[in-house]
Amino acid sequence: MKVAFVGAGNVAWHLAQAFENTHIAITEVYSRDIAHAELLCNKLTNATIKNDYNFTDSEADILLVSVSDDAISSVISQIQIPTKVIIAHTSGSVSMDVFKNKFENCGVFYPLQTFSKEKKLSIHKVPFCIEGANSFVTDTLKNLALKISQLVYDVNSEQRKTLHVGAIFACNFVNHLLALSKEILTNKSLDFNILKPLIEETIEKALSIEHPKDVQTGPAIRKDIKTIEKHLSYLNFDLSKQKIYQLLTESIMNFYADKSE
Amino acid sequence: MKVAFVGAGNVAWHLAQAFENTHIAITEVYSRDIAHAELLCNKLTNATIKNDYNFTDSEADILLVSVSDDAISSVISQIQIPTKVIIAHTSGSVSMDVFKNKFENCGVFYPLQTFSKEKKLSIHKVPFCIEGANSFVTDTLKNLALKISQLVYDVNSEQRKTLHVGAIFACNFVNHLLALSKEILTNKSLDFNILKPLIEETIEKALSIEHPKDVQTGPAIRKDIKTIEKHLSYLNFDLSKQKIYQLLTESIMNFYADKSE
Repeated sequence: MKVAFVGAGNVAWHLAQAFENTHIAITEVYSRDIAHAELLCNKLTNATIKNDYNFTDSEADILLVSVSDDAISSVISQIQIPTKVIIAHTSGSVSMDVFKNKFENCGVFYPLQTFSKEKKLSIHKVPFCIEGANSFVTDTLKNLALKISQLVYDVNSEQRKTLHVGAIFACNFVNHLLALSKEILTNKSLDFNILKPLIEETIEKALSIEHPKDVQTGPAIRKDIKTIEKHLSYLNFDLSKQKIYQLLTESIMNFYADKSE
Repeated sequence: MKVAFVGAGNVAWHLAQAFENTHIAITEVYSRDIAHAELLCNKLTNATIKNDYNFTDSEADILLVSVSDDAISSVISQIQIPTKVIIAHTSGSVSMDVFKNKFENCGVFYPLQTFSKEKKLSIHKVPFCIEGANSFVTDTLKNLALKISQLVYDVNSEQRKTLHVGAIFACNFVNHLLALSKEILTNKSLDFNILKPLIEETIEKALSIEHPKDVQTGPAIRKDIKTIEKHLSYLNFDLSKQKIYQLLTESIMNFYADKSE
């Protein structure tokens, strides 16, 4: 199996090197910014820098389109490949319909992880969400994913949207709450490191049990109105944080009220 | 140094055993529910079950009051100890004023961690927040904490309130977002395990860098209105989650708009 890449960002960076480590050759890398393609090709054995979207002479069996979500559609419209070559994008939030009427052997090869070039990660623990327009594509993409990861899932476009929304709650919003928490402490010259062991233990507990809802703690689930009111008035200096405190407190209260009915 | 406990809940459970492991004797344990006191005393070498709040004949140098926040005040009003004995509570959200006019050698001995009886944890990595009414109390409580933990901080009542609010954002609310995320996935028969590697990586990144704000990802920070609107309409089936999505998205957008000015 041979793979070519359109895009040389964080995802392509990790995937291409992981493929080479399991003896899957990377044939070409194209990037709108040629410096990115160069950087990645320098890390690979035989990959060449491609200067256009015409892959009709490529030896690749699979072309992975790994560009930013809003560029995918326009990039795809310019790509040329032989009919038998599989084309797949690596995005969590773009439907497979983006290939409609242009490519028959198309699919999605979505690694559900956050990548940065500087940070190593264990690719074999990254979940891959695979979708194919037909069983040839699905099987080939799943086999490709299994070469580098133990976690390969069939996920269609509708399910991928659900995963994306779930990830926004569990990752993007969680990260933002950590940022707000750090601000709250820093405002009073307190070291955010004091909270880190508690945060780590909270996450470990939430992920090791059947459902995070079973380890909820804090004033909201205790219906400790006195403490909640103290905190809301403490947050008078920052109305945005106060509003978040109020809404999430209400959400916790309603969540457990519903469950106990 | 010898320690007695009023309360035999999760915090007393872990502290008492940690003290004994470093050769600090536990003299007595009192609990409103005698079965809890029995359970804990069975884990300890020489501790006896106490039946009342009169500790005037106790050999303890320090009495730790480790009961639920709303019981602290009424429990303290009933306790009797010799003047030289130090009394401290272990709560994150109750001010030291709760001892006012009754005990001179009073303080706070607050382990900033979430405890359950069933789950072992490394007590030496638990941050202890210490406050004393005078330097004798502060020094003694800090020495006591240092016997079992490397992380001992001077934290006054005002700072403790700040820490508590920060912990609610970083732990209670974070846990709730994980619960909501799991619900979103389960509604569509998706396995929450698919998200776990991403959640773990998100937390690891957020806690290993200078500020979680520097690793924020997702549609809100990208100002990807198209995706945000798609998600909001997807969440039409659950207005409570939709409201949270909207508020946290706005908060992220405003957070980074403010910062870039």
